[in-house]
Amino acid sequence: MNTELARKLLAEALGTAMLLAAVVGSGIMAETLIKVPSDTAGSDALALLANTIPTGAMLVVIITIFGPISGAHFNPAVTVAFMLRGELAPKIALLYIVVQIVGGILGVWATHAMFVQEEIFQFSTKVRTGAPQWFAEVVATFGLLITIFGGLRYAASSIPVLVGLYITSAYWFTASTSFANPAVTIARTFSDSFAGIAPGDAPAFIVAQLIGALVALGAAVLLFSEKTES
Amino acid sequence: MNTELARKLLAEALGTAMLLAAVVGSGIMAETLIKVPSDTAGSDALALLANTIPTGAMLVVIITIFGPISGAHFNPAVTVAFMLRGELAPKIALLYIVVQIVGGILGVWATHAMFVQEEIFQFSTKVRTGAPQWFAEVVATFGLLITIFGGLRYAASSIPVLVGLYITSAYWFTASTSFANPAVTIARTFSDSFAGIAPGDAPAFIVAQLIGALVALGAAVLLFSEKTES
Amino acid sequence: MNTELARKLLAEALGTAMLLAAVVGSGIMAETLIKVPSDTAGSDALALLANTIPTGAMLVVIITIFGPISGAHFNPAVTVAFMLRGELAPKIALLYIVVQIVGGILGVWATHAMFVQEEIFQFSTKVRTGAPQWFAEVVATFGLLITIFGGLRYAASSIPVLVGLYITSAYWFTASTSFANPAVTIARTFSDSFAGIAPGDAPAFIVAQLIGALVALGAAVLLFSEKTES
Amino acid sequence: MNTELARKLLAEALGTAMLLAAVVGSGIMAETLIKVPSDTAGSDALALLANTIPTGAMLVVIITIFGPISGAHFNPAVTVAFMLRGELAPKIALLYIVVQIVGGILGVWATHAMFVQEEIFQFSTKVRTGAPQWFAEVVATFGLLITIFGGLRYAASSIPVLVGLYITSAYWFTASTSFANPAVTIARTFSDSFAGIAPGDAPAFIVAQLIGALVALGAAVLLFSEKTES
Repeated sequence: MNTELARKLLAEALGTAMLLAAVVGSGIMAETLIKVPSDTAGSDALALLANTIPTGAMLVVIITIFGPISGAHFNPAVTVAFMLRGELAPKIALLYIVVQIVGGILGVWATHAMFVQEEIFQFSTKVRTGAPQWFAEVVATFGLLITIFGGLRYAASSIPVLVGLYITSAYWFTASTSFANPAVTIARTFSDSFAGIAPGDAPAFIVAQLIGALVALGAAVLLFSEKTES
Repeated sequence: MNTELARKLLAEALGTAMLLAAVVGSGIMAETLIKVPSDTAGSDALALLANTIPTGAMLVVIITIFGPISGAHFNPAVTVAFMLRGELAPKIALLYIVVQIVGGILGVWATHAMFVQEEIFQFSTKVRTGAPQWFAEVVATFGLLITIFGGLRYAASSIPVLVGLYITSAYWFTASTSFANPAVTIARTFSDSFAGIAPGDAPAFIVAQLIGALVALGAAVLLFSEKTES
Repeated sequence: MNTELARKLLAEALGTAMLLAAVVGSGIMAETLIKVPSDTAGSDALALLANTIPTGAMLVVIITIFGPISGAHFNPAVTVAFMLRGELAPKIALLYIVVQIVGGILGVWATHAMFVQEEIFQFSTKVRTGAPQWFAEVVATFGLLITIFGGLRYAASSIPVLVGLYITSAYWFTASTSFANPAVTIARTFSDSFAGIAPGDAPAFIVAQLIGALVALGAAVLLFSEKTES
Repeated sequence: MNTELARKLLAEALGTAMLLAAVVGSGIMAETLIKVPSDTAGSDALALLANTIPTGAMLVVIITIFGPISGAHFNPAVTVAFMLRGELAPKIALLYIVVQIVGGILGVWATHAMFVQEEIFQFSTKVRTGAPQWFAEVVATFGLLITIFGGLRYAASSIPVLVGLYITSAYWFTASTSFANPAVTIARTFSDSFAGIAPGDAPAFIVAQLIGALVALGAAVLLFSEKTES
């Protein structure tokens, strides 16, 4: 493996770890501060707000600083989409996906190590299932990919901000709170906290995410294809 | 219909659908998480905050990625204003308005499909009426159009952010929470949730919005006209 | 009066009116939604958050779209500072200050007209007094002017965002919630709502604001003077 | 001492004072508004949100306006890192650190002077200790430095926003709420409020912060080194 590829993989792993730290850590912090049964008025809404803002902010940071190195995918659905567009060799794509998953899990474990009440190694027990949630993941991932493809076509330097804002929005308008990312989904099975998802519920989420990515690939051809410009 | 026009209409429809998903979905999510009678201390304020942030964020995204295709109106009041300024043919304007309304309604229905507790097809029962609310819609739409015209004149590349921030602000300073958009108003009659509006209350809102747009057209001539520069 | 000056004054008046709408309207909306005695846990903090975000957002909008016309002062303390720097004739400065005050008051009245429960014409009964609050206004206005002078020196195109973010921050770190603006202070005496200030408390606030502006003028000479660069 | 150096030190001192005002002042404001025992549902989460937004906003402002003068460190961990990279003479670095600490403490005292219920001179009694919190400070400072180094390499003009967003995120995903700054840590020992830290707990935080900075220096060589580009 050459140095340049190693640097790309390090960027994907570290970036995904930082993303998971933001997602899982802010959920744990919110639960810790709220300290009450989750059915108290407003506390879950406040927790999701406390989960949303750090996630959106972190996405802007990591896409800006790692984008010029690796493209800042941090997301197998994004990597697969770029592979299908012919912009990433399948072999590299596979390596990307592996380090995204590994980086995400390490990010979750590092986050648990920061909170005294958390065991490092956990599995989520949070049920997230059913057709509405699966459809929500299709929509969430479709929107994410449309945001990225549209950004690449018309406003490449704004992509970090666009993705941060899109996810800020999608956390709230999708019933699933917008995982939209298979590596994030897998990593979140390892945290029995606000942001967790039961391992058995992850596969359906990932399938839904890949469907959303495929639909977005098609829509992007209609909307953002070079040819219609000429 | 040529390909370029079809692409514009697709952008207007999809963008308006995404806008309605953010508006209606975040309202449903807030209601779901809060789970309490809406007269509990602070819960409605938290719900509006949870409605505001995703809406503003989504506006930045969709105006950035669809703006270069269709102008990113997503709003018949904006389309009418550009038509009256002679920047859009009446026939195209009419098509824009149709797809904005259809896209908005489809966005609401797709959003309902993401939440297990929601029927797809609903009508709002939320009363939003009275002179103060109508005046609020005049003000809200006036401010939106002034923001767009001023942005076009002095900071075209900032328009997505300006519109996102304007609506973020207007959700709070207008008693009507700033619909400011006839397509959004119509689509929101189809959701009996936080963001809904009873169908019978929609026409007066739309009239108010069009008045606000006309006033803004006049003010923009005074403020942002090319001629006063020379 | 020539057309260009009329246009500047219109921009100052309309911008200040929009600023007051955001400040006073979001305060009324927060109070309306919270519907409870203000000593309930967290409700005042939520109201200030609901006051902060619309104000910061509106500042970015109005400084961007009116800045190229009038400089987007909306604030007699800013106007006086530019006059003292020799960048604005005293006669024009006086006209600016008059229209800022008139625009601000009209903005408050228009805002009251949007909320069914509010009388148009009111006086605030909210006590805001004492040395700590006056010192807070000195600090708040000093920081605002330093932000503007530093922005002008190093990042002119970012001034709308810098001012919006500064006020977002200052609403929270000053005990007075950072009025930092004599026109805003006067206008807020006309609203007996969350954002109001009793008329008798306004003069001391305004004196403190002007002191803060003078201190900032001096600090800007040390920090942002052209001469130290060469 | 020459004028240019004096100007740099003034910028570091004033900027750090403004940062501490935002951090400590918003914490006091949140506590004041919430007015209830901190174990009430959601009030601590709301207070941290009210602490996060002003801090992130202020960072964008002060890094933008003071960056071109002094580099806008406001943080001995940043100053040490730049010294170790050979970009700052040790003698200057020492002066920077001294004025950062002095400025930070003066900022805390000025903030106390703005709130009628606060004594100027206080010591915090807030316990912040234990291996998880120390690890959190390592992570928080590592992430901050990676953000700065990555920003310098690929998006220098975005550094103010990147740092503001990073800290916005890190307040929530680290158990320590991300001090990530020895001068801030020392200054916060002087405030017995929401943002305080007991003096005895500060040294371990500072050691952890310096470790985080060193790890980031190493990672930056792998990730952002010039040589791998050629």
